[in-house]
Amino acid sequence: MEFAELIKTPRVDNVVLHRPFYPPVEGTLCLTGHHLILSSRQDSTEELWLLHSNIDCCDKRFVGSLGTIIIKCKDLRIIQLDIPGMEECLNIASSIEALSTLDSITLMYPFFYRPMFEVTEDGWHSFLPEQEFEQLSSITDEWRLSYVNRDFSVCPSYPSIVTVPKAIDDEALRKIATFRHGGRFPVLSYYHKKNEMVMMRSSQPLVGTNGRRCKEDEKLINATLRAGKRGYIIDTRSLNVAQQARAKGGGFEQEAHYPQWRRIHKAIERYNILQESLIKLVEACNDQSHNMDRWLSKLEASNWLTHIKEILTTACLAAQCVDREGASVLVHGTEGTDSTLQVTSLAQIILDPRCRTIRGFQALLEREWLQAGHPFQQRCAQSAYSNSKQKLEAPSFLLFLDCVWQILRQFPCSFQFNEHFLVLLFEHAYASQFGTFLGNNESERYKLKLQQKTMSLWSWVNQPKEVNRFMNSLFEANGLVIWPSVAPQSLQLWEGVFLRWNRSSKYLDEAYDEMIHIMEYNKELQVKVNALRRQLAELETEDELQESP
Amino acid sequence: MEFAELIKTPRVDNVVLHRPFYPPVEGTLCLTGHHLILSSRQDSTEELWLLHSNIDCCDKRFVGSLGTIIIKCKDLRIIQLDIPGMEECLNIASSIEALSTLDSITLMYPFFYRPMFEVTEDGWHSFLPEQEFEQLSSITDEWRLSYVNRDFSVCPSYPSIVTVPKAIDDEALRKIATFRHGGRFPVLSYYHKKNEMVMMRSSQPLVGTNGRRCKEDEKLINATLRAGKRGYIIDTRSLNVAQQARAKGGGFEQEAHYPQWRRIHKAIERYNILQESLIKLVEACNDQSHNMDRWLSKLEASNWLTHIKEILTTACLAAQCVDREGASVLVHGTEGTDSTLQVTSLAQIILDPRCRTIRGFQALLEREWLQAGHPFQQRCAQSAYSNSKQKLEAPSFLLFLDCVWQILRQFPCSFQFNEHFLVLLFEHAYASQFGTFLGNNESERYKLKLQQKTMSLWSWVNQPKEVNRFMNSLFEANGLVIWPSVAPQSLQLWEGVFLRWNRSSKYLDEAYDEMIHIMEYNKELQVKVNALRRQLAELETEDELQESP
Repeated sequence: MEFAELIKTPRVDNVVLHRPFYPPVEGTLCLTGHHLILSSRQDSTEELWLLHSNIDCCDKRFVGSLGTIIIKCKDLRIIQLDIPGMEECLNIASSIEALSTLDSITLMYPFFYRPMFEVTEDGWHSFLPEQEFEQLSSITDEWRLSYVNRDFSVCPSYPSIVTVPKAIDDEALRKIATFRHGGRFPVLSYYHKKNEMVMMRSSQPLVGTNGRRCKEDEKLINATLRAGKRGYIIDTRSLNVAQQARAKGGGFEQEAHYPQWRRIHKAIERYNILQESLIKLVEACNDQSHNMDRWLSKLEASNWLTHIKEILTTACLAAQCVDREGASVLVHGTEGTDSTLQVTSLAQIILDPRCRTIRGFQALLEREWLQAGHPFQQRCAQSAYSNSKQKLEAPSFLLFLDCVWQILRQFPCSFQFNEHFLVLLFEHAYASQFGTFLGNNESERYKLKLQQKTMSLWSWVNQPKEVNRFMNSLFEANGLVIWPSVAPQSLQLWEGVFLRWNRSSKYLDEAYDEMIHIMEYNKELQVKVNALRRQLAELETEDELQESP
Repeated sequence: MEFAELIKTPRVDNVVLHRPFYPPVEGTLCLTGHHLILSSRQDSTEELWLLHSNIDCCDKRFVGSLGTIIIKCKDLRIIQLDIPGMEECLNIASSIEALSTLDSITLMYPFFYRPMFEVTEDGWHSFLPEQEFEQLSSITDEWRLSYVNRDFSVCPSYPSIVTVPKAIDDEALRKIATFRHGGRFPVLSYYHKKNEMVMMRSSQPLVGTNGRRCKEDEKLINATLRAGKRGYIIDTRSLNVAQQARAKGGGFEQEAHYPQWRRIHKAIERYNILQESLIKLVEACNDQSHNMDRWLSKLEASNWLTHIKEILTTACLAAQCVDREGASVLVHGTEGTDSTLQVTSLAQIILDPRCRTIRGFQALLEREWLQAGHPFQQRCAQSAYSNSKQKLEAPSFLLFLDCVWQILRQFPCSFQFNEHFLVLLFEHAYASQFGTFLGNNESERYKLKLQQKTMSLWSWVNQPKEVNRFMNSLFEANGLVIWPSVAPQSLQLWEGVFLRWNRSSKYLDEAYDEMIHIMEYNKELQVKVNALRRQLAELETEDELQESP
């Protein structure tokens, strides 16, 4: 297919663009295969470049022959184009619709994007499982890398390399895979150096109504227990939901077969409930009614903050079991690809200072989201404005980022990265020039040859020039476990994402810039002090030389 | 009366103190005339000094002979004392109750407090009306100081000196005073240099059911109009409430008699409605139920943020009339001592950069709250925990401070002072060692001889050592009018006051300290650079001298 076929009208003059925080601007609208571009004649800086893949939905309306297209973006921005001529408007609208809903991943922009920067570090190789395992094996020899999923046949949503107890061989893993939903047998998620306790994750066991068991599965997770110690299974579903799952062949670990494990059920919502929550929240945020009661009711009715609270509470519980109870933990829900990953990744942010550094956080995303098989392609296909209710969409990752933001807000010095980095990740998960968030798992990414054909987000982000923008000026390495408050009073709406386009952040940005300016000035002064000291030392040496002979 | 009569048990040993963020501590409890003191034997730093006047209410309960006193403070803190011995506990509780509800102002701590610092600037003389007027008279000669209220007989709640139009003589003022509620004739509140427009304030006109008029009143406010221009009367009550006021002899300016004025009604709530709102809000903030829906419902039901929005919206309206419409404005509600002052003082913060400096803000409080006759003694007699429903209490001033905080949050670089300063003012308005907020108006303050017998808060605050703590490190003088957003999404709960005792701010304080540290380091470096430059210059001169002969 050629993009040209989809572009009915590649160019329209005298289009007026309305967007947040800028006065309307008139210019020429151009459609390319991947971008919608508006350039003003007066001033070349007045331009809009919008990725088609960032478009969540697109409405048109007419007043006489003046057409108006309202474009609602996945990053929650809303822009408006006034287009003279009904035919042009219809053509543009249908082209945008076609280009923003391309079926084939290989037609997406990351496959066409050519970077304008020199790649000094290829992000595709920055966080390899082998490197991670090397760190682990320097402190414990109880774990091994397994290549049993080399060709993705044992578990299609797992990476080719996973970390499992040394005592369990690949044959056992193959058996366990048949006992776990989607083949997701328990693997290592996190090793807590401090007390040698571990967190594992998996999917639900396929217990069914017959109460099926799998001795290898029992052996695997028992292998992580210390002598005489009990472990915790954290099921991210309510007991009720977990019980209902048995009718469909799923279920939960039976006490009789896992006597050393205590099961705790914590209800975290999934899929369409989360998606509807996001839609309601964004609708509330965009409400212009200027009525305080209505705003607070709508915020409450969206349940977004309730979901944040549920997720954070469960992550704290997992972290507590590991750090305070000194127990091993297994986390799973149904598939183990959404709430499970929210819990294991947030628990690591709480427990492990490394995950609060910018590279450590990237490594965490690679391990616990990308390699762990969170289906980004399905979940992030649409955002808050889409009317099409596809069942597989859910803001699981956005909820995770929001939870990270909540912790960051409570511990403003403990993170090496800043809020901008979290917003960036939100944007790129939904629409990007980089290949990082394409596909649903490593298997798909491998087949798409993303490493060869697209650029990694990390290649760009980790350039010194770019990474500086995402650094938290207040960071002071904090080696401790951090316990966020999950009281409802402590959790807030993430304005940086949800109110970003509704009101100008100009004055808040100014404050941020002022701080950056102060830090820069600090560095300059330090350089100056050093230079002056050197000059002084030189002069004094000269003087001594002059005096000594 | 001797305090000793009220103190039934001056001292109890083995009392255990529970308070937010500290582990319980055992020590000796002492009651003095003005303080409740707990000192631990182990560590002299583990002490509590609590002003009796800070105590809002005090509950006791018993388990066997162990008594427990729960003290709820006006600054919203809750502390608990476990007292062995029922008699001791009862004695302490009744002493606290008596000492925290003394009738006579002259028995309050400010009359006994002896400062431990040297007074370099007497705050009682820092903001005299004559000084303010000098500034005004350098730019316009249309206004004069009137001493008509010299002995507080014309208007008991006005100061002895007020600024009025030059064209209006004292005889007219006396007449107008009889036409305005409580004698509060229109006076100058703010002169907008930029376009020479003014804001005045007064109380409601005593129109009554007969439609009484007062030509002098009409002449006074018309004197502030430019030729051919109209002015705005902002009535801080709904039209309905204003109409009902006529039955009680009050009312509003009739169109027929004030044809050059457009009246706008904006409903700001008063008295017990505000007090109940505060009580509900604080109850919601202290709710431990950990339920997000409940918290958001209770927050909404408290209506606190609705009040914030009403007040800010009206202040923005007043500021808009002055700055954008280029019109004169008169603001009043019923008495002109609460919502009127909220509106005029917030409008000045929006319009006048001087009011956003720390001294300018103090001057604003003196002019628009203290001298303007806001009855602090009545309004701040009780805070959120008191059960006694006295009609005259209302958190008018706290709402004003909250509104200032909302603007500060939106314009973090435009204020010279920081949030800590606002919190300090809240505390001292309710309980203080200083005399500033004692009494209900200047007349009472004069009779109490506060200037001679007590210390001004400003004497203490404006010492270089103290004032530094209240400075905003991000301040960059901004000479512009600042327009805050009043969209409900833009207004937030003031955590610094309402969640202050519910969760530790340790990590947020750390971030603040880190910033202060960076600023300090900056200064140090600058000093070092200067010193090194000087040294270098000296060495170079020496060298030249050595070389030249």
